[in-house]
Amino acid sequence: MPTENRQIRLAARPQGLPTPDVWEHTTEELADPGPGQFLVKVEYLSLDPAMRGWMNEGKSYIPPVGIGEVMRAGAVGQVVASNHDGFAVGDHVSSAFGVQEHALSDGTGVTKVDPALAALPTYLGMLGMPGFTAYFGLLEDGRVAEGDTVVVSGAAGAVGSVVGQIARLKGCRVVGIAGGPEKCAWLVDELGFDAAIDYKAQDVKAALREAAPEGVDVYFDNVGGDILDDVLTQLRRGARVVICGAISQYNATQAVKGPSNYLSLLVNRASMKGMIVFDYADRYEEAAREMAGWIGEGKLQPREQVVEGGVEAFPDALLMLFRGENTGKLVLKVA
Amino acid sequence: MPTENRQIRLAARPQGLPTPDVWEHTTEELADPGPGQFLVKVEYLSLDPAMRGWMNEGKSYIPPVGIGEVMRAGAVGQVVASNHDGFAVGDHVSSAFGVQEHALSDGTGVTKVDPALAALPTYLGMLGMPGFTAYFGLLEDGRVAEGDTVVVSGAAGAVGSVVGQIARLKGCRVVGIAGGPEKCAWLVDELGFDAAIDYKAQDVKAALREAAPEGVDVYFDNVGGDILDDVLTQLRRGARVVICGAISQYNATQAVKGPSNYLSLLVNRASMKGMIVFDYADRYEEAAREMAGWIGEGKLQPREQVVEGGVEAFPDALLMLFRGENTGKLVLKVA
Repeated sequence: MPTENRQIRLAARPQGLPTPDVWEHTTEELADPGPGQFLVKVEYLSLDPAMRGWMNEGKSYIPPVGIGEVMRAGAVGQVVASNHDGFAVGDHVSSAFGVQEHALSDGTGVTKVDPALAALPTYLGMLGMPGFTAYFGLLEDGRVAEGDTVVVSGAAGAVGSVVGQIARLKGCRVVGIAGGPEKCAWLVDELGFDAAIDYKAQDVKAALREAAPEGVDVYFDNVGGDILDDVLTQLRRGARVVICGAISQYNATQAVKGPSNYLSLLVNRASMKGMIVFDYADRYEEAAREMAGWIGEGKLQPREQVVEGGVEAFPDALLMLFRGENTGKLVLKVA
Repeated sequence: MPTENRQIRLAARPQGLPTPDVWEHTTEELADPGPGQFLVKVEYLSLDPAMRGWMNEGKSYIPPVGIGEVMRAGAVGQVVASNHDGFAVGDHVSSAFGVQEHALSDGTGVTKVDPALAALPTYLGMLGMPGFTAYFGLLEDGRVAEGDTVVVSGAAGAVGSVVGQIARLKGCRVVGIAGGPEKCAWLVDELGFDAAIDYKAQDVKAALREAAPEGVDVYFDNVGGDILDDVLTQLRRGARVVICGAISQYNATQAVKGPSNYLSLLVNRASMKGMIVFDYADRYEEAAREMAGWIGEGKLQPREQVVEGGVEAFPDALLMLFRGENTGKLVLKVA
């Protein structure tokens, strides 16, 4: 049995991009599980753009991580000791175990996962929060229908890549917006997107006019900023804009850039709706079952990019998200 | 019978506020109605913030007024000559007759109105487009329910004053945002709003925190700009923002100010939806019937501000809207 637990704690609230000094690296003695508890050895940690928001003070959809607390993070791991009837040693589990090597749990909010059905990192991606976000955001909030033109930004990311694939299998025309020719080629050649726009090299508005000549029925926005504004100009009547994230704005030290073209909502009788996956918690199983089926049939391709280095590598790995260095779900290997 | 028809035509596309030189004053000989036509003597013209949008080039929810065309305007008048079976001399009618003293019509888009049921200007206000906009925007797009907190901007305007009154009679807490102490007093003392915020004198965000301490369920936005941004910070979970207009931005010569706080939609799983009253055209009668009933029962108070001066006074009267000089529906008396 291990006796030490290394952790990354939030030491200070960042201004802009999180610099090394906002983190504290700690090592604690590992406690034995108490009655009704079990100990998890963390194997993979999820890296999410939303983490940046959790580091800020103030009211949001979830309380901020407190100063001095272990950084919140989704994780998968294995039970290595248990005094809990529902979780046995050897079970693989997923929950918000935090950026640490081991976690004690009483089972609240913990899901068992089956490593025979999918690779463990997939439970942090397509069969985890990002996948559920894509599934419910597109199908429920976006109300996509066959024949719709769906545009997704952050298209090569954990959520965007799933949004596009689900839209494809629902019979939509799918246009992805991503940064760089490799990501764009991946979207079209591997994932079957109808078109991809490289926002770093192309004029997004002009490229959209070409890729979505009849306008946009559903825009799934992960990035905000100028790209949101560009897509707003191309909405079709009755369009649905799903606001899932705004990665371009998370590290802004000035006021967030609001969408100047929001009056396109008026002209086009369109709607813009924010979504938080937690609201669908009682339907995660349904989404996981359906998506696992699609993976099995080869209709969805999970993709994770695994970074090595253990919890110590967390601060740098997080920054990869904001530099756009990941393709698919970014995961940190811990054990 | 009159032989001349004075008109105001659009001579040029304005930059910013419409200056006198964008208008052309013309006088034409009056033609007799042809077969199936009738002639309307215009009595009152509607002055609407939306007119500013119609003067711009480019794709919108309605084609722009062409250069050289009679300016588009809603109107009520009386049939003075008729070769049409459905419309007799003496009938009172409403339609987009334009900024002119007389209009020929074949009856398309023309509604008969009853001067015994309501004053003629009311058919341009509460029992016309502004009233229908308020009715459908609040009840359909805003989906208000009893006990909701409803905030409306441009609250003393033609649409806003009806929004607030309908919300009141639906059992909502109603907060109006308007400019100046007289308008605010009118909203609370005469129309029964629960609170009014004078945006010219008060800090809107702070005042809202006090007037809507549990947050905002429905925000009916007629103004855009900073006020929209302020209200976004006070949304309640699941809030609905109805974008009806953005009068603060219509004369902007720089880029429209987008709502920097739009990510409040995400945090609060809220939606922002644009509405155009034309989409409810097949239900205008239903709205008119119900609102006429409420007027009869004293539950709704129509209010029009009538400007004298005939069509010549149109250019100046239009500017009153953008200076916030009207209380209730602004109407120009023609005949």
